[in-house]
Amino acid sequence: MKNYLTHDPWNIIEEGFHPDYNEVSESCFSIGNGKMGQRANFEEQFSGQTLPGSYIAGIYYPDKTRVGWWKNGYPEYFAKVLNSPNWIGIDIKLDGEVLDLATCKVKDFRRVLNMKEGYLERSFTAKLLSGKEVAVKSTRFCSVVDTEVGAIRYTVKPLNFDGRITVTPYVDGDVMNKDTNWDEGFWTEIEKTAKKRSCFVTTETKKTQFQACVGMRFSIFKGKTELEFPTTTTLEEKYAACSATVRCKANDELVIYKYAAVVSSFYHEKPKLLERCKKVVKKAFKKGFEKLLKEHAAAWAAKWEEADITIEGDVAAQQGIRFNIFHLYQTYSGEDERLNIGPKGFTGEKYGGSTYWDTEAYCLPFYLGTADQKIARNLLIYRHKHLQKAIENAGKLGFKNGAALYPMVTMNGEECHNEWEITFEEIHRNGAIAYAIFDYIRHTGEQSYLAEYGLEVLIGIARFWSQRVHWSVPKQQYVMHGVTGPNEYENNVNNNWYTNLLAVWSLEYTMEAMKTVEAEAPEKYASLLKRLNFDQATETVVWSEIVAKMHFPQHEKSGIFLQQEGFLDKEIRTVDELPAEDRPLHQKWSWDRILRSCFIKQADVLQGIYFFEERFSEEELRRNFDFYEPLTVHESSLSACVHAILAARLGKYGKAYEMYLRTARLDLDDYNNDTEDGLHITSMAGTWMAFVEGFGGMRAESDMLSFRPYLPEGWEGYTFRIQWRGHYLQVKVSKAGTVIANHSGQPLRLRVHGKVVEVGAGSETAC
Amino acid sequence: MKNYLTHDPWNIIEEGFHPDYNEVSESCFSIGNGKMGQRANFEEQFSGQTLPGSYIAGIYYPDKTRVGWWKNGYPEYFAKVLNSPNWIGIDIKLDGEVLDLATCKVKDFRRVLNMKEGYLERSFTAKLLSGKEVAVKSTRFCSVVDTEVGAIRYTVKPLNFDGRITVTPYVDGDVMNKDTNWDEGFWTEIEKTAKKRSCFVTTETKKTQFQACVGMRFSIFKGKTELEFPTTTTLEEKYAACSATVRCKANDELVIYKYAAVVSSFYHEKPKLLERCKKVVKKAFKKGFEKLLKEHAAAWAAKWEEADITIEGDVAAQQGIRFNIFHLYQTYSGEDERLNIGPKGFTGEKYGGSTYWDTEAYCLPFYLGTADQKIARNLLIYRHKHLQKAIENAGKLGFKNGAALYPMVTMNGEECHNEWEITFEEIHRNGAIAYAIFDYIRHTGEQSYLAEYGLEVLIGIARFWSQRVHWSVPKQQYVMHGVTGPNEYENNVNNNWYTNLLAVWSLEYTMEAMKTVEAEAPEKYASLLKRLNFDQATETVVWSEIVAKMHFPQHEKSGIFLQQEGFLDKEIRTVDELPAEDRPLHQKWSWDRILRSCFIKQADVLQGIYFFEERFSEEELRRNFDFYEPLTVHESSLSACVHAILAARLGKYGKAYEMYLRTARLDLDDYNNDTEDGLHITSMAGTWMAFVEGFGGMRAESDMLSFRPYLPEGWEGYTFRIQWRGHYLQVKVSKAGTVIANHSGQPLRLRVHGKVVEVGAGSETAC
Repeated sequence: MKNYLTHDPWNIIEEGFHPDYNEVSESCFSIGNGKMGQRANFEEQFSGQTLPGSYIAGIYYPDKTRVGWWKNGYPEYFAKVLNSPNWIGIDIKLDGEVLDLATCKVKDFRRVLNMKEGYLERSFTAKLLSGKEVAVKSTRFCSVVDTEVGAIRYTVKPLNFDGRITVTPYVDGDVMNKDTNWDEGFWTEIEKTAKKRSCFVTTETKKTQFQACVGMRFSIFKGKTELEFPTTTTLEEKYAACSATVRCKANDELVIYKYAAVVSSFYHEKPKLLERCKKVVKKAFKKGFEKLLKEHAAAWAAKWEEADITIEGDVAAQQGIRFNIFHLYQTYSGEDERLNIGPKGFTGEKYGGSTYWDTEAYCLPFYLGTADQKIARNLLIYRHKHLQKAIENAGKLGFKNGAALYPMVTMNGEECHNEWEITFEEIHRNGAIAYAIFDYIRHTGEQSYLAEYGLEVLIGIARFWSQRVHWSVPKQQYVMHGVTGPNEYENNVNNNWYTNLLAVWSLEYTMEAMKTVEAEAPEKYASLLKRLNFDQATETVVWSEIVAKMHFPQHEKSGIFLQQEGFLDKEIRTVDELPAEDRPLHQKWSWDRILRSCFIKQADVLQGIYFFEERFSEEELRRNFDFYEPLTVHESSLSACVHAILAARLGKYGKAYEMYLRTARLDLDDYNNDTEDGLHITSMAGTWMAFVEGFGGMRAESDMLSFRPYLPEGWEGYTFRIQWRGHYLQVKVSKAGTVIANHSGQPLRLRVHGKVVEVGAGSETAC
Repeated sequence: MKNYLTHDPWNIIEEGFHPDYNEVSESCFSIGNGKMGQRANFEEQFSGQTLPGSYIAGIYYPDKTRVGWWKNGYPEYFAKVLNSPNWIGIDIKLDGEVLDLATCKVKDFRRVLNMKEGYLERSFTAKLLSGKEVAVKSTRFCSVVDTEVGAIRYTVKPLNFDGRITVTPYVDGDVMNKDTNWDEGFWTEIEKTAKKRSCFVTTETKKTQFQACVGMRFSIFKGKTELEFPTTTTLEEKYAACSATVRCKANDELVIYKYAAVVSSFYHEKPKLLERCKKVVKKAFKKGFEKLLKEHAAAWAAKWEEADITIEGDVAAQQGIRFNIFHLYQTYSGEDERLNIGPKGFTGEKYGGSTYWDTEAYCLPFYLGTADQKIARNLLIYRHKHLQKAIENAGKLGFKNGAALYPMVTMNGEECHNEWEITFEEIHRNGAIAYAIFDYIRHTGEQSYLAEYGLEVLIGIARFWSQRVHWSVPKQQYVMHGVTGPNEYENNVNNNWYTNLLAVWSLEYTMEAMKTVEAEAPEKYASLLKRLNFDQATETVVWSEIVAKMHFPQHEKSGIFLQQEGFLDKEIRTVDELPAEDRPLHQKWSWDRILRSCFIKQADVLQGIYFFEERFSEEELRRNFDFYEPLTVHESSLSACVHAILAARLGKYGKAYEMYLRTARLDLDDYNNDTEDGLHITSMAGTWMAFVEGFGGMRAESDMLSFRPYLPEGWEGYTFRIQWRGHYLQVKVSKAGTVIANHSGQPLRLRVHGKVVEVGAGSETAC
């Protein structure tokens, strides 16, 4: 755990340079706009520790699978998000001497991520080996308005000398991924050009043949006066640059404006990329830095208006929750249903930047709650577009008749993961995708989504479950063998309670959805069933049979739902009994020992109770929470949020707050010592859930929104905002109680602490 | 399956060139002497399909582990047997035109492996592009007398031209493994020299720093006259050669003798390697090819005298069984307790050439039965030498107090394998190592082995088992979770019957062994227990408790021992019901499907019944055989032999013969389409077991050897030879009955078909 960042409600601040933590800061101070993202690398050269990272949405490389021992059914590649051409670079030389913070004395270093307005600022004074001192300040952002534009204002001020300052803004496509299976570069050069004050580099990914054209144009001011200056240009492999040398006197302020464009074949035809890039650069240049920034900040203000959470009386907590919301919206803006949310977003390469079940289980509620429903809807359509690939994927594993198994990890719908116990067995993900459809409709009320997209996906998933179970003669029940639940510290178990529950629920919900669509859109229904060769005489009969006769392992006496068959045969110990030096288990214990132990990586039975809370009594919840919580080591960033919500539900506020804290500042304080790889973007959505569903006690109960807010000890108050079926609410909780404001044009009935309340249009109600 | 080799009792014969099968032939026709081995690559250049393979005993490279997803506890490297410097190479040019069978018309090609005398012969006529025709015959062997010597007689006869023949014998250390994790070469050059008619290359392995010096000297005869000729020498990276050009007339017969030596730092000090190599070459040269071959053939005759099996009335079967015996003795000659038997011996690189539990379970009985007991003893001492590493290995997995877990795959005692479900879970191997000690003593009667080496190993193994089980509260029994049995088509199961049986038996046998040693060598016993910090008050008490209360999954009603807990919850189908296109499962089904199915890769419960046959009634054997055999796909080369033996025991002679056939000509007929990678050496020992224990019905029952021979249909008769406690027997079975000859100086009582018979010294008895 680290504690080097300054607490502040709206800014992330690094005071003084921390070169050892530089890669952590690069992650935390990342900027992005949903289409591109950039780690907080330096503009000028830096020979110290750094993980260069510039990312373009939708562009990936299928890196040939690397395994020790091949198993039949493994995918051919793992899709990797790409470190893309560098658009931020500006080399600086002072009388020929390179500015490089790794070789200077650095003073007054300050790095600020302004979350309110969405930009990164960095300032410092450097004393070079020659004794020359220079003050630098840079400001940059990826515009959320002009989403192909990145802009930089870079100010250099010689402090104790007169001399020549050489400025070399460049575009560099000769970049590598840190994460490559076979030590290869992923980009080849297509074309490059440099002329006067602008340059452009077009590169193409190997195999996938995505093209990116990255270009820039720059200007230099001395104070407020724009300078005229000659440039020299340089072209190298995948690299183009313009250099200018300007004579300065001490305390002259040289301001470089660099306007970059990142355009890709994900959005434009390849032959027109360069033209488009030039156009975008030109337009940005013309608009100018200040106007670009102003528009960008205004867009962020609108976003905050929708999604902000305020906390009074705890600056660290306030900073933490905004940090999470800010990065979620930097990662995914929801306009493009081909995009999704990688575990590290645009802040690192790890986990390949692909889509996991995190999206459905953790991210969807955040976007549903804080934004227009079309954003969440696009996340659902993303999976609908992948349905055929999911059917092919199931086919590879021997399933038939349109059964669909969504991949564990994917970029374009194809499975990328290659551990048999995950790839082939962690199939509960399929249920999460069905659950997301249910969750979306419950939250938005948009039943018609079923006929349009949802039912087809549900049928594919239901068909998978019905083939994945089999009849056990000894049990005289259906069983599901060989699965891995959300608790990945168990592999290849039989009858994982959570997976069985999701399977049965998926079948039930699919049959319910069929009835809905049949009633509401009979023609669409008939045509869909025909297209899917759906045989109602047999398929739903089998589904109903499975629903009626599924095996759920349970300990009758204690009322514990067993995580899997035979769970109580394990030696049951609690996490308390583990010596500190044994933690984290995944680093200290061999894998077999972890598997044999009773210790749980992340919510599993409790994830099931969380998803279907209304199916279980509070007593059942309490018994299972009290049994499983003490066994849970929370060695996944996705675990604590579910425990926080359930603890709050049970009135265990101390535990709820403890669990919340584990997630809220996970990256800012680098709890897991891995923030250098990138931020835990998807678990940030879990933090939001822990806040709104834990502290706020929010639930979507059939047709009504419900809250059971409470105020954590030591806080003065908090507010959060929620969108619900076209309504836009603010919930304000303080020692005085809860006030709910309805900012929409219709009155809304909702439940607070179990009582139904009506909040009038445009008014607020104390509850 | 292929069928291109000619049936012959003593020879393996390829008539006509089969370039598509060349790598298969290279495996089958391999030569070796227990210290070095050589695939049947060509001496002259060959640009066609070939897997070059020259191997030196004891020399390996620790290739950095390659995995997709690292699990804590994985080893750092996988030890690889090395493709070593090429000593066979002789380039041939005819008037400057290279002889290369891939570019000529080849006629009268014949490749013969003479198993009786242990040499490889190849002859052919080649018509080159120029129209020149040449007849070639080569003969080579690795001497089993001078085990550092390889010798070649290579005859070239121009058929339709007079001209210059250029002969370039060389040593080439610039060789690669096909199987490398990171595409690296494993050898670096130390020194090289070439002078007149000899050259030497010394290379060193990276990381392990083994050195090998390979040298050669050659002479050329025309007919019977030795030629004088000048040479030119060539030195390149890790390569040295001598060239001579001789003018020939049509039908002149040019005979090149190449005497090579392969000496290594496994046996000699590094600074003296070159000197030693020169000495060995010189001695071989002086002895001459014919004498070397004569001595070599005599040694093979003596080996056959001990180990031959004859079959009358079935040439294919005769060839098959001799092929197996021959290759086993080419692989392991038993003088060096640092060596062991790799799955491919000296015939290929696959599986790294390391030691598996195959040695104890399959190979040991062969060497016990066919050779002096010191050979088998060295296989046991090999594991004793690795005991400390096995204790370290267990320590890495969290075991304490001297518990030993022998590795799944090893070269020097360290674990090399890296699949968690095997490395950490296929722990029954530990029991096989205990069983081998029992088996050795039962066969040889050498109880004193326990005090000297055995007991220490047994205690380490017993300590492991006692820590690996735990108490199940619901069952009120000891259980063992998270294991993989011999049937690797199940992973991470609970209470594998076989593993539990081996664990309990290991504890029992260790306690019995302790009593034996205490009685027979009380001082050694006391000192060993002290050295091991053995606490008799607690340790054996716990062991006895586990023996008494271990859980064995069983279906009470049917009397089936369950392969693992919950096995009957599976959908039970038989192999008969599988469509042909689904086989082999490991190529056609995804891994999860294999795991969920009831299909069995190799004997598992039946392996346990085989090991401890006397503990089970014939009825128990029959019930379990009848249940498991129809579920077994035999997709391991180690499976069919156990089924053959048990089928024979049950009088299911048809099934026994079918199973025997699957193993006997596995490589000769390339059943599994993988002989090109090398021969299945360890399963060859299983074939021998299937013969002697299946057809011969041999058992070692406490203090007496026992036979229940029967004659497979269509055979006239067979004989096999057995060593037993200093006795040397021949068992001859024909339609007339069984005759047992006792070639030793003492009479022997044994059991035939259940009746005790005494066979006098030097006499034979019909039974």
